[in-house]
Amino acid sequence: MKHALSVTRAQDFAAWYQEVITAADMAEESGVRGCMVIRPWGYGIWERMQRILDDRIKATGHENCYFPLFIPLSYFEKEAEHVEGFAKEMAVVTHHRLIPDGKGGLQPDPAARLEEPLVVRPTSETVIGTAFARWVQSWRDLPVLINQWANVVRWEMRTRMFLRTAEFLWQEGHTAHAAAEEAREETLRMLEEYRAFAEGALALPVIAGEKPENERFPGAVETWSIEAMMQDGKALQAGTSHYLGTNFAHAQGIRFQSAAGELEYAHTTSWGVSTRMIGGVIMTHGDDDGLRVPPRIAPWQVVIVPMLRDAPEDEAVVSYCKALRADLAAQSAFGEPVRALLDLKAAKAATKRWGWVKKGAPVVVEVGGRDVAAGNVSVIVRTALYRADGKLDARVTPRDAFVGGVAETLAAVQESLFAEAQARMRSAIAPVDDWADIERMFADTGGHPGWADVAWSKPTGAALDAVVERLKALKLTIRNAPKGQSGHPGARCIFTGDAAVERVLIGRSY
Amino acid sequence: MKHALSVTRAQDFAAWYQEVITAADMAEESGVRGCMVIRPWGYGIWERMQRILDDRIKATGHENCYFPLFIPLSYFEKEAEHVEGFAKEMAVVTHHRLIPDGKGGLQPDPAARLEEPLVVRPTSETVIGTAFARWVQSWRDLPVLINQWANVVRWEMRTRMFLRTAEFLWQEGHTAHAAAEEAREETLRMLEEYRAFAEGALALPVIAGEKPENERFPGAVETWSIEAMMQDGKALQAGTSHYLGTNFAHAQGIRFQSAAGELEYAHTTSWGVSTRMIGGVIMTHGDDDGLRVPPRIAPWQVVIVPMLRDAPEDEAVVSYCKALRADLAAQSAFGEPVRALLDLKAAKAATKRWGWVKKGAPVVVEVGGRDVAAGNVSVIVRTALYRADGKLDARVTPRDAFVGGVAETLAAVQESLFAEAQARMRSAIAPVDDWADIERMFADTGGHPGWADVAWSKPTGAALDAVVERLKALKLTIRNAPKGQSGHPGARCIFTGDAAVERVLIGRSY
Repeated sequence: MKHALSVTRAQDFAAWYQEVITAADMAEESGVRGCMVIRPWGYGIWERMQRILDDRIKATGHENCYFPLFIPLSYFEKEAEHVEGFAKEMAVVTHHRLIPDGKGGLQPDPAARLEEPLVVRPTSETVIGTAFARWVQSWRDLPVLINQWANVVRWEMRTRMFLRTAEFLWQEGHTAHAAAEEAREETLRMLEEYRAFAEGALALPVIAGEKPENERFPGAVETWSIEAMMQDGKALQAGTSHYLGTNFAHAQGIRFQSAAGELEYAHTTSWGVSTRMIGGVIMTHGDDDGLRVPPRIAPWQVVIVPMLRDAPEDEAVVSYCKALRADLAAQSAFGEPVRALLDLKAAKAATKRWGWVKKGAPVVVEVGGRDVAAGNVSVIVRTALYRADGKLDARVTPRDAFVGGVAETLAAVQESLFAEAQARMRSAIAPVDDWADIERMFADTGGHPGWADVAWSKPTGAALDAVVERLKALKLTIRNAPKGQSGHPGARCIFTGDAAVERVLIGRSY
Repeated sequence: MKHALSVTRAQDFAAWYQEVITAADMAEESGVRGCMVIRPWGYGIWERMQRILDDRIKATGHENCYFPLFIPLSYFEKEAEHVEGFAKEMAVVTHHRLIPDGKGGLQPDPAARLEEPLVVRPTSETVIGTAFARWVQSWRDLPVLINQWANVVRWEMRTRMFLRTAEFLWQEGHTAHAAAEEAREETLRMLEEYRAFAEGALALPVIAGEKPENERFPGAVETWSIEAMMQDGKALQAGTSHYLGTNFAHAQGIRFQSAAGELEYAHTTSWGVSTRMIGGVIMTHGDDDGLRVPPRIAPWQVVIVPMLRDAPEDEAVVSYCKALRADLAAQSAFGEPVRALLDLKAAKAATKRWGWVKKGAPVVVEVGGRDVAAGNVSVIVRTALYRADGKLDARVTPRDAFVGGVAETLAAVQESLFAEAQARMRSAIAPVDDWADIERMFADTGGHPGWADVAWSKPTGAALDAVVERLKALKLTIRNAPKGQSGHPGARCIFTGDAAVERVLIGRSY
């Protein structure tokens, strides 16, 4: 069977991923090392994600702020573990002026060297913590619950669009609390928000759980993540939430007078999701015809393609389409007006149809002269593109029935994308009791069989290092220890043979 | 009469401006040179502005994208005038890694020096033009209509919160067109969008017009602006729209095959407004009690302050306030649900009341036990704070009447802010025919009398330079030549005595 893309997932997943991004006009190389241009279809998806997540962040009591892009070098020197984790990959501003280089070009002006270099923020714990230290004096000032939407830069040697770029867009939440317990609750509250957002809006089934010690955010006491499974069986860490204890409070001096009159350090958290999630959407929902965008985050949920013939009848088709678009926009799906586009670009209808299929618009509606005459539309649902015989499934449907049922159709598409991804993830998580089975499961056959669900004794220090090394030899990592586990009486650690403490998921990852 | 701020506008306008920002918790110094922290009240205003303007930008056919923060040095070397205009004030990234400096601190790693330094974008014409060159091949690809919301950096020596900061937030629209006329129409269309946005959403009366040649954006053929008048009589350029001709198209190679088969250069435009506009809102609407936020951009339009006494009755007051908040949120103002907050923070009611007055919430509602018993609320409207006798005008109003009339109240506040500012601006623009009157008008008496409206011959080259110098001696600039002028038969240029071509506004500015 022929598909719209030149490479299939089965042939070469990595090449397929790149082709989806190009074919769907989502993003492109910018000419600036490691930085991409996010094009309207990709950015439109991000805007939808932002809007939905921002509503959730505000509904849980957080307010948005904006903090500086630049962080003085000295801020990083305060939290030793933190700088250890980030120091290797930061963009450093050293000059504030350019002058002619005498060869017709430009150069940094040696006379405009900064006394203290500035780092382009890789994350904002240090600069926000410094602000918290100013804001927090008394227990009455707590909790501080803020969030920022921003660009951040981590100098990556090997980049891949959306998944790993030098500059990326994200939100970073930062909070300070009087009590450890309250901060830990916040950490888990936002983890749960991320889970609900990923599953509800992005149709991305995820496993929420705690990262092992070796995968913690630099300076964190606990790091929690949501992990999504891509179609190639690899894991994508799609969001993290950190309990930072009083580590950053000590480094930045976030202290408060308690109700009892004692001077105490605040407990802080941070949590973030980024444009990386778009990569997760592509690798979870894309197929060999391109992207499939979950309707809740689709910039356009229904695209109308008129079949024009450069003939007088065209006018009737266009006006039929305009009325159709207006009627669709008057419908409500997921609590909002349906986002319907009438595509009047100067191109052939078939080119436009396949363009929208590759972009993954949930529903494409074609309208020709015959449809107008009969009061019909021809409906292509992106999640049911082909008939059993392999032909494109464009269903002629009475126009009013289509309009009246569009919200239901969109809900069904959203639901089916989630169900498909969830079934795939569930079937690819296997309980494994024996290390030899791990070796067999992940024997390098070119594919990635999913994740192994194993019991472990949660070793620390050198014992943990040994486990990490053993996994690394098979290109594996511990993804997380899923939340909400009950006891494991009698279970043995797959690594050490000791009594198990919890179960963890093991897999390859992006 | 006593006011909430320690400095009045009349005493020291610059100190008053800073105090409003602090008293309203809008922003603060960040500890990073020239960069501010935008706090929730300031950022909430920006978010409202973004939402309203973004809707307008999309309604006029533009799509949002995202382009890299970093621009390679060589991109700037291509457009000579452009680099001339910006080269002096850019942050330059020269290294991509930090290493220990041997003294317990960090330093840029000499081994990680970038081959080509990267400039933190001061504006994105160069990098977006490079993308346009990839996107545009044929007339069918035109127009390209895009916008981005982003942070930009211009290294400023003297900074002032919102008005002039090293990093600021803005939107920058960039478009490419087949024909000059179409690009000029776009330039004026977006100028008109800015005017309507400033006046409609921000209640900021502005004069839209063309900047003189010496004030053009580096590389532009025409620069248009909207100019607002601050309460001290100075002008604030609140938004600009540029017709760039084919200058950037030549520099970046934005060429297309025309319908006739010729290879032609595209005509481009760019236009932007920034967080600077928030400074304009403060200096236009603020009074000696703090900020007054136009309701359309107020994060909270109505704030409910319960008067609690740490007594059993408190419960009834709080539940009355909760129901009030819900009923207000069910009302619609300006086509959206009313944004109503119940302030339950642990502080005295009077402290909270004055806090919201200083922040400029349009309506503050106080509710005490007596109000609950009588079914009333006590309403303070920010634009009518005091009675004739100088006392705070808190009007006891039946609760249901207040709720039912809240949309009207908010509309009236919006309208009165605009009317007040417009009357002030109009009365402070004086037609002047004689240079001696300009000298008298702007004699340095410490104040700024507004703007002079003068006829001029629109000189160029050395003759324009002479005019600019003459104005500079009085700290004046030409703000713009207002749009929609008719002819000026018989009028003489105030500078040269030649026949006048148009009228321009002259004033001091931020």
